[in-house]
Amino acid sequence: MPLLPEPLERLAAELGRLPGVGPKTAQRLALHLVGWSSDASRRLEQAIADVRQGVGRCVTCGFIAPAGELCALCRQAGRDDGLVCVVAGVTDVLAIERSGGFRGRYHVLGGTLSPIDGVGPEALNLDRLLDRVRQGGVREVIVATDADVEGEATAAYLAERLAELGVPLTRPAHGLPVGGELAYADERTVAHAISGRLPV
Amino acid sequence: MPLLPEPLERLAAELGRLPGVGPKTAQRLALHLVGWSSDASRRLEQAIADVRQGVGRCVTCGFIAPAGELCALCRQAGRDDGLVCVVAGVTDVLAIERSGGFRGRYHVLGGTLSPIDGVGPEALNLDRLLDRVRQGGVREVIVATDADVEGEATAAYLAERLAELGVPLTRPAHGLPVGGELAYADERTVAHAISGRLPV
Repeated sequence: MPLLPEPLERLAAELGRLPGVGPKTAQRLALHLVGWSSDASRRLEQAIADVRQGVGRCVTCGFIAPAGELCALCRQAGRDDGLVCVVAGVTDVLAIERSGGFRGRYHVLGGTLSPIDGVGPEALNLDRLLDRVRQGGVREVIVATDADVEGEATAAYLAERLAELGVPLTRPAHGLPVGGELAYADERTVAHAISGRLPV
Repeated sequence: MPLLPEPLERLAAELGRLPGVGPKTAQRLALHLVGWSSDASRRLEQAIADVRQGVGRCVTCGFIAPAGELCALCRQAGRDDGLVCVVAGVTDVLAIERSGGFRGRYHVLGGTLSPIDGVGPEALNLDRLLDRVRQGGVREVIVATDADVEGEATAAYLAERLAELGVPLTRPAHGLPVGGELAYADERTVAHAISGRLPV
């Protein structure tokens, strides 16, 4: 006979589908929810339902948006439509926005190319990007995917496709972190910083 | 203007009330839920609702049980009703059951005494334990709260209350972990193991 009631085991199994939530954490979270007030539990349930019904991907760029609509960034006036920053995920957009260093538009791929994991171009939000470029008005695409194997492969693939359309592609500069100490930077970062040195 | 739709921010706030889930993790989980299928999202909602409506605390021992009912362990036949193991939380019961080393009944306090955090006897499931002992048939109470300040204070408080009722109280033995190496055990554990040594 199971020690815990079926709904609790089921809730733990559902929570276990979240990223970074293993079976033990899922059980701990489910047990914690037993102690929640009815109101708190209802609020969580309602928030999940509201996200299911009212939140989706931006029809233009793939960022998080009200279902079937443009996201806040595509709607924002005064941004540079000629400059599109391509990122792997939603959190990359949030990081760049926090930096305040970019006033163009975004395009969220929803991942990076990874043949080993079976992620090909068709699995990414790529066609919509090429459509945006074909529509004209884009003079530069910044590919801000990570500098790992998948991120570089994705950038290389995009460079090829965008060359056909005659739009230049750039990558963010690598170098020493601002405020970071050279002695503590990793070798590849130092090498990038030296080879990409700028006149003062 | 907020970058993310209101239901998503609200979901992140609700998830942030879970233990060990900080604001960044909560946002990551909420963003992940946007990518879930309608069916998967509905299953999670339903599981939360089913736990809210159908799961509570055992009316006898305080373990997790179908709402308003006895838990699986209080209902289980063939256990020793004369031996009651008192623990701080539900996960302690699960750990002891996994060990297979106990066939008595349990009592879950729902915490430990902690004057600093304002947790007094009235905040714990203590009266119900004293009632169980007063009803008779309990010949020993094992207090398996942790060997930290709060756990020891709780054991001392219980020893006082149970002495009035004439029921002996015991604590689990401390010593070297089975399969553990003496050289790697902490000092207090080694000291306990030596002072509590047994004839071969």
